[in-house]
Amino acid sequence: MLPILSAKETDLLKRRLLERANTDYTEQEMVVNSVLRDVRETGDSALFSYIERFDGFKANKDNLVVTEEEVEQAFKIIDPSLLEVMEESAANIEEFHNHQRRENWFIEKNGKYLGQLYLPVEYAGVYVPGGKAAYPSSVLMNIIPAKCAGVPNIFVATPALGGNINPVTIAAAKIAGAHKIYKMGGAQAIAAFAYGTESVPRMDKITGPGNIYVALAKKSVYGQVGIDMIAGPSEVLVIADDSANERFIAADFLSQAEHDELAACMLVTVSRSKADAVRTEIMRQAELLPKKDIVLKSLEKYGTIIVAETLDEAVETANRIAPEHLEICTEDPQALLSKIRNAGSIFLGEYSPEPLGDYFAGTNHVLPTNGTARFSSPLNVDDFQKKSSVIYYSREEFEKVYRKVEAFAQAEGLDAHARSAAIRFED
Amino acid sequence: MLPILSAKETDLLKRRLLERANTDYTEQEMVVNSVLRDVRETGDSALFSYIERFDGFKANKDNLVVTEEEVEQAFKIIDPSLLEVMEESAANIEEFHNHQRRENWFIEKNGKYLGQLYLPVEYAGVYVPGGKAAYPSSVLMNIIPAKCAGVPNIFVATPALGGNINPVTIAAAKIAGAHKIYKMGGAQAIAAFAYGTESVPRMDKITGPGNIYVALAKKSVYGQVGIDMIAGPSEVLVIADDSANERFIAADFLSQAEHDELAACMLVTVSRSKADAVRTEIMRQAELLPKKDIVLKSLEKYGTIIVAETLDEAVETANRIAPEHLEICTEDPQALLSKIRNAGSIFLGEYSPEPLGDYFAGTNHVLPTNGTARFSSPLNVDDFQKKSSVIYYSREEFEKVYRKVEAFAQAEGLDAHARSAAIRFED
Repeated sequence: MLPILSAKETDLLKRRLLERANTDYTEQEMVVNSVLRDVRETGDSALFSYIERFDGFKANKDNLVVTEEEVEQAFKIIDPSLLEVMEESAANIEEFHNHQRRENWFIEKNGKYLGQLYLPVEYAGVYVPGGKAAYPSSVLMNIIPAKCAGVPNIFVATPALGGNINPVTIAAAKIAGAHKIYKMGGAQAIAAFAYGTESVPRMDKITGPGNIYVALAKKSVYGQVGIDMIAGPSEVLVIADDSANERFIAADFLSQAEHDELAACMLVTVSRSKADAVRTEIMRQAELLPKKDIVLKSLEKYGTIIVAETLDEAVETANRIAPEHLEICTEDPQALLSKIRNAGSIFLGEYSPEPLGDYFAGTNHVLPTNGTARFSSPLNVDDFQKKSSVIYYSREEFEKVYRKVEAFAQAEGLDAHARSAAIRFED
Repeated sequence: MLPILSAKETDLLKRRLLERANTDYTEQEMVVNSVLRDVRETGDSALFSYIERFDGFKANKDNLVVTEEEVEQAFKIIDPSLLEVMEESAANIEEFHNHQRRENWFIEKNGKYLGQLYLPVEYAGVYVPGGKAAYPSSVLMNIIPAKCAGVPNIFVATPALGGNINPVTIAAAKIAGAHKIYKMGGAQAIAAFAYGTESVPRMDKITGPGNIYVALAKKSVYGQVGIDMIAGPSEVLVIADDSANERFIAADFLSQAEHDELAACMLVTVSRSKADAVRTEIMRQAELLPKKDIVLKSLEKYGTIIVAETLDEAVETANRIAPEHLEICTEDPQALLSKIRNAGSIFLGEYSPEPLGDYFAGTNHVLPTNGTARFSSPLNVDDFQKKSSVIYYSREEFEKVYRKVEAFAQAEGLDAHARSAAIRFED
């Protein structure tokens, strides 16, 4: 367990990590495709029948949406101190995401201008998984960016077993700014959001985590509706030098490992003695955890320690892995920041552990997993907006250039395009 | 042909437009899946054999990339006046897209800060279709945003029938800033870009138009690599009042219709007499076009004129269609701009016709089609960058809040997360 490799072996590790996503889901895909087709073709009727089958809830037009009374009840039931933490966290998330908003701009020159508008989508659908545990932090992280983007209709879908939703989920959705909560889950919820039914409006964007059926449904409707990303198994990579505290690193390692058996925890250190010390600490602390079984399986399969020659080599290893979470626990973490090219969220120093970002600081915890930080981003306000270009030329300005437009169109054999330019100055 | 509807019938039109994308591609999907699998499993060997089969070009490690000599030759061959237009257009595109670049930012407070970094992807692969006609404008539009994003490796893939690429394509790619041009096309090119082979590095993002095999391959690799969008049939919607010039509108209508039979041209006007005048002009001008056959098929299937009661209703119709191109030909087009919620690119006034944006002004002509402007955007610099979050808390700042992080984690049943926060202040 926890092999100690050299940085030259990074490619091996990379391949092993990628293999985490190579499960064959043909069977689940067939189920999902038929659910999508049924809901698209018969709307509410299919939706309600799947809800009854999977959630044991006799849904209909009148009981599909969480009521004001249910919301009030939720706020009464839940622990006031948790409510307070959620509210403070929500305020932090809102502040950070408000900084991501962008202003329309125009470049003006004489009688012409070009510009870009930033417009919120009109309908955002946020999926929230059901099940025994509630993950209110995820509810906040998905809804608040949509709110900051100015989305006028933020609708949540979550399975309601027997008609009931965990009150913590309801409270988190309301704190975050959701406008409606639909009692529906699984692929049928994604179908209803993607196509619309008599009771559920069609969404423009669907985000949020879910089980494999939800993930496959999202991938399938992608293109007809916007989606956030296809979430894969998660990972943390810690860069440490001799100054790092092995107890802290071990604890952070384990916090990732408790998610599931496919979670990957990696340490890249320039110190062989630190590698040994962290490994010992991990094994010691793992024994203390309630989720010890999951943790040990994750560590056994994907837990890796790499000893690099230099901090530059350590950073290069991180760039090649493109981890979801990157902790930099070195004497001068800021010094390495400008060298990072691929990472979802970067945690600097020993007092910025991953759970601070998961729960509280204000950055988003919906992050690109399994190497996709190469090309994708933490969930953010841009995900709930789209851009429009604007072009204006006066007659005088267009007269100066229309021959060029005409010539370019002709070179491509598009005569009607060429004519559209030229006709303005004929006769 | 060209039925005149009322705005109340917009939903009918919307449905007919969406149906354009409902072709069954099961057969092509099977072909694409086996090409993807072969190239993933055997790399160059499969890639070269597909290139030989589909393009009649005996590709190998040494002749896969366009040489310096081929580039020089291309610039010698092509029409100098076209070269000049392309260079001026490229400069305009670059200026507009440079305005889209964003600066890293940090929010600092006492001993903590949060921030967002904007980092270019390392490898961008741009697909350029082959075939008889070359579309150099599309080459510029795909490559320049990547260049403005700071992508260090911009690689083009385009089929080389018998080993030859249209010199105009080569010149456009070089003007735009491509670093390499690979002689490969079809699903095998997308596979090579998505997975990498011995001769082709794996890309982080793949953009560019292509035939149905290319489009299906892009959709299939989405998630393992970033893609721009799934392009569908295109459309223009013109809003016009009595002040509009029917000859101009008719010409713009027809410039869209010449693309292909699935292209949809729509006029929304508040003037019944203008509706009639435009219709007459369209039929008159259509007769003059070399691509008359395609144009008439497109008009017959999807050409539509809507008479709205008011300009507000006209704008609302446009918002519901979410057209790729929106031309506003009214007395005061700016006055309507703030009411637009869904449109790819907006052309204001009679001297800003669509071809100005297609070829020259500087905005991007790679636009969300078939109603996807509800949630997606013109191709832009953001498509070639990703964001990373940054978190730093000092010991003092984290000490103030770690109990809250711990409590939130415990409420979600994630004990190792809770411990990761608490362990920093134990003993």
